[in-house]
Amino acid sequence: MVQKLKGIIPPLLTPLTVDYNLDVSAVHKLIDHLVEGGVHGVFILGTTGEATGLKYDVRQEMINETCLAAKGKIPVMVGITDTSLGESLKLAHLAKEHGAMAVVAAPPYYFNLGQQELLEYYEDLANCLPLPLYLYNMPGLTKVHIDTDTAIKLSKHPNIIGLKDSSANTVYFQSLIHGIKRQDFGLFVGPEEITAETVLMGGDGGVNGGANLFPRLYVELYQASLDRDFQRMKQLQKQVMEVARMLYNIGKYGSSYLKGLKGAASLLGLCNPHLAPPFKQFKEMEMEMIANNLKVIQANIEKIGLSGHTQQYI
Amino acid sequence: MVQKLKGIIPPLLTPLTVDYNLDVSAVHKLIDHLVEGGVHGVFILGTTGEATGLKYDVRQEMINETCLAAKGKIPVMVGITDTSLGESLKLAHLAKEHGAMAVVAAPPYYFNLGQQELLEYYEDLANCLPLPLYLYNMPGLTKVHIDTDTAIKLSKHPNIIGLKDSSANTVYFQSLIHGIKRQDFGLFVGPEEITAETVLMGGDGGVNGGANLFPRLYVELYQASLDRDFQRMKQLQKQVMEVARMLYNIGKYGSSYLKGLKGAASLLGLCNPHLAPPFKQFKEMEMEMIANNLKVIQANIEKIGLSGHTQQYI
Amino acid sequence: MVQKLKGIIPPLLTPLTVDYNLDVSAVHKLIDHLVEGGVHGVFILGTTGEATGLKYDVRQEMINETCLAAKGKIPVMVGITDTSLGESLKLAHLAKEHGAMAVVAAPPYYFNLGQQELLEYYEDLANCLPLPLYLYNMPGLTKVHIDTDTAIKLSKHPNIIGLKDSSANTVYFQSLIHGIKRQDFGLFVGPEEITAETVLMGGDGGVNGGANLFPRLYVELYQASLDRDFQRMKQLQKQVMEVARMLYNIGKYGSSYLKGLKGAASLLGLCNPHLAPPFKQFKEMEMEMIANNLKVIQANIEKIGLSGHTQQYI
Amino acid sequence: MVQKLKGIIPPLLTPLTVDYNLDVSAVHKLIDHLVEGGVHGVFILGTTGEATGLKYDVRQEMINETCLAAKGKIPVMVGITDTSLGESLKLAHLAKEHGAMAVVAAPPYYFNLGQQELLEYYEDLANCLPLPLYLYNMPGLTKVHIDTDTAIKLSKHPNIIGLKDSSANTVYFQSLIHGIKRQDFGLFVGPEEITAETVLMGGDGGVNGGANLFPRLYVELYQASLDRDFQRMKQLQKQVMEVARMLYNIGKYGSSYLKGLKGAASLLGLCNPHLAPPFKQFKEMEMEMIANNLKVIQANIEKIGLSGHTQQYI
Repeated sequence: MVQKLKGIIPPLLTPLTVDYNLDVSAVHKLIDHLVEGGVHGVFILGTTGEATGLKYDVRQEMINETCLAAKGKIPVMVGITDTSLGESLKLAHLAKEHGAMAVVAAPPYYFNLGQQELLEYYEDLANCLPLPLYLYNMPGLTKVHIDTDTAIKLSKHPNIIGLKDSSANTVYFQSLIHGIKRQDFGLFVGPEEITAETVLMGGDGGVNGGANLFPRLYVELYQASLDRDFQRMKQLQKQVMEVARMLYNIGKYGSSYLKGLKGAASLLGLCNPHLAPPFKQFKEMEMEMIANNLKVIQANIEKIGLSGHTQQYI
Repeated sequence: MVQKLKGIIPPLLTPLTVDYNLDVSAVHKLIDHLVEGGVHGVFILGTTGEATGLKYDVRQEMINETCLAAKGKIPVMVGITDTSLGESLKLAHLAKEHGAMAVVAAPPYYFNLGQQELLEYYEDLANCLPLPLYLYNMPGLTKVHIDTDTAIKLSKHPNIIGLKDSSANTVYFQSLIHGIKRQDFGLFVGPEEITAETVLMGGDGGVNGGANLFPRLYVELYQASLDRDFQRMKQLQKQVMEVARMLYNIGKYGSSYLKGLKGAASLLGLCNPHLAPPFKQFKEMEMEMIANNLKVIQANIEKIGLSGHTQQYI
Repeated sequence: MVQKLKGIIPPLLTPLTVDYNLDVSAVHKLIDHLVEGGVHGVFILGTTGEATGLKYDVRQEMINETCLAAKGKIPVMVGITDTSLGESLKLAHLAKEHGAMAVVAAPPYYFNLGQQELLEYYEDLANCLPLPLYLYNMPGLTKVHIDTDTAIKLSKHPNIIGLKDSSANTVYFQSLIHGIKRQDFGLFVGPEEITAETVLMGGDGGVNGGANLFPRLYVELYQASLDRDFQRMKQLQKQVMEVARMLYNIGKYGSSYLKGLKGAASLLGLCNPHLAPPFKQFKEMEMEMIANNLKVIQANIEKIGLSGHTQQYI
Repeated sequence: MVQKLKGIIPPLLTPLTVDYNLDVSAVHKLIDHLVEGGVHGVFILGTTGEATGLKYDVRQEMINETCLAAKGKIPVMVGITDTSLGESLKLAHLAKEHGAMAVVAAPPYYFNLGQQELLEYYEDLANCLPLPLYLYNMPGLTKVHIDTDTAIKLSKHPNIIGLKDSSANTVYFQSLIHGIKRQDFGLFVGPEEITAETVLMGGDGGVNGGANLFPRLYVELYQASLDRDFQRMKQLQKQVMEVARMLYNIGKYGSSYLKGLKGAASLLGLCNPHLAPPFKQFKEMEMEMIANNLKVIQANIEKIGLSGHTQQYI
């Protein structure tokens, strides 16, 4: 029986070399950084991990290396989202083999599935998986929304143990909190701007991209929310909002988040700034903006004082 | 200078006769019911008020009667959303004349406006209005989203005093809370499922449809959120979730909310069940489900005990 | 019994004064221009006519003046699209009174109707109307698509005599041509780029915005399509494509079509360039581009030679 | 220099065994059926081929077997659409190795790319590919539309030789026909309902799913369109519309097309009815409807008489 996971589970960036292979040493560095920052687990090969843009051998290597680096330190959740059920299963077996704790799957994202089709897909998947499954609702990218009724039905499957919601719709999230009766079912949100409020309202934590950069900030915000320490929460929430405002909104299109986050991570010495196709890293001008904003954010975080080791950035 | 409004502002149902004229006596009854329930204001001619489906003379009569009934008791906000700026202004002048406190406008909802066009539209509107303006973000119906940057720019206009967000996206709502610097700018949410959490995080209240039925429930939830009384909040939030689950999800299509809410209101003796075209009231079978569910909800609300007068329903 | 209308039915621009009232003399000038250009009817108060942005008294005056100007010359179709059934009916009665031939209604465009709701809405409307009805499919603006099955069912109503499709989806249009069995049911397309091909495949004509500018061009293209004169069709189609490319794609957002069309009409001396709110006319720089492009288009049209009177533009 | 391909290029169904492996003998049978039916090429691993649902080894085997079966008979276009550029390139190299004529790629379909990002993605891809590339516009499934300007820019790349449009929007298609100046650039449509009209207007043919079933019907419709033989075209178009109406609209959701097409193919003895996950084949009741409808269609096709060999179905 898996114990219910709670807290901050960063969706790990996938560190790449210039030719889109895995930067193995950066994976270990990143995991060390997060472990030191007190996170409660890591989620690899999600949207932030650019899983769909990676070649399969890179995905496999990412599983191996992350599990190796995290072994005995923090649990690993492995993204197996794929349009092919067979490829998802292959990744899941690899994850099992290397000691991952669970897998995570968004709906197959090419065809427009109906809810009944989606239900059957997840049941078939959960029946075949060697590890417990977290559902991953990401309608903006997959086009398919895991409706409340579907999620509630799926929550009764013994091998489905939680759901990560990246819809940002907290009416939906509240409906899940109230509709799902299993106490051991984990409910996480993606967007870091709403981790605090969902934890206040009964959620289990956040799968927050910014935690790649400043893990302790997100861990303390989670803790303050659990403790209903509103004064501290307000200080921390403000910084989290500033990370989002100053790092994820530079440039155009929906890719600003990914480009900004990886750009900032590179400036913090955590990995290279290279993104997998179809995206390209920010150019010099945008990187300068990121660098300037990062300094402001670091100074502000310094002011409010985070517990734990002082984080030494470049 | 208008004092900042906070709390529960029910979006009033528009009571209709069988031939789609205004049921004047029901307007007064409904206002009395809400005043007695302790609400902090009312918002007429919104989505819940079926404004767009009403003839203009009915909208005008609704303004007159509501202002008359609410006079000296609670402030009235008047929806002036229209595709024609000229018609919006006419309604606003009538609202002013009858003593309304403010007007509310969603984007004009036929054409797809760009953000710059939307900004200029709202600036033009605010410049001409005889009353202060609340923005109303309702992208699911208007197609046009009032983006964070646009809302922040508009929040600096002296005649724009608040925003009601019905997007259900609390990442957006958090961005407004952090990005808008005016202390006297009101930020409300539409969906009742998230009033509590947004109030905890700095929001000013809820424009919640269910408050037409059970005003005291929503008012107490708002107060418990303000007081950070989590134990009470949990009890009340559960009932609010049940109202949404049991009354707004019967039947098909997006109209279930309106049909269920007005159907329930009719069973509580507050108004007729008639909806303005293009919608029709629930048929007998669905009304029976509403009636049964209403009894369950009433019994559960009874159990947790609301302060104030006992509400006597049919 | 109304005879089946076919051919080019321009969706009339609504000429406005600087304060958004009707420019009555321009209405008459525009109608004369179109009658001289050989069009088969006119459609007022549609999307191109900015109906939703006009005050009701302007819409009413537009009905009066157009019917007056067109009397005995060409049939008038009157747009009565509205979110309020009652207001639609008022406009329809006025249209009847002034001698219009038919009315046109897109789905009510605020709420998201289901197909069954849409079907009942149109049946109710058609039952009450004093004039025959054309359905108007415009899903990009109304959000509600009149699905094939719904359209086929509605085509059996004796008071529904046709459909104008502005979806640009010719799979849908082919489905209507094959699925609707009434010979006297008129099927028109909105986008001028596809009038020729739909006429070749069995359609009845085009409700084409560019025909406000160059009626003869569109009338000849329609005729060439009827005659299957591919050589002539190719010449004319090329010019129609250039009108769309050079006049409707300047500036940003979806409003380029309206701004470009009305801007060009003003340069041709047909009306003022003022648009009803929420839109504003092009600024000087864009108007210069329109002016230059207009000259190129006029020169090219000159080269291929249109029959009828030479059009004298400013 | 590749000669410009024109005509009917069926998007090949992928015949599967019950455990989702390739049914090799059915691939050969299907290719023979299509060659006999006179098609001008085949396109494998597209939407109809369920490419995204197949394991990679099945995709590879499909390339090998199709190229083997088609060798010296008809050209093969290979779908390499993938969210990972690296995986697309691997498939392209395999296609080259086995003698395919070209590759086809829709936009990477997980992230929402902006047009500039899309442009750069396709340029990078085209620069690396060992075979010429057809663009594939499929916005309903990829979310990303290849806008007219983007397509026109890409049409100037020497290694991009055509575009298949499955948007069903013929305004867009006309814009491409008029905007792309290269004579050797191939423009095809996906939906079979509009192959005839686009060929009349300058298109190069159809990538039509129904041609898997009745290749000769589609080939003759293409030829009649080229010949402007309207009488024959009308007969054939009617049958094509009936295939779509009677076979692709059974059941719910967007998957009716795939389920109906493969179900019908199985009844014609061309392959098994198994679909790759996330879809499942029709159940007995729906299969009976398909069977009945298929008989009606076959009888009607019989009546109009197709040239070539009589097709012997089960």
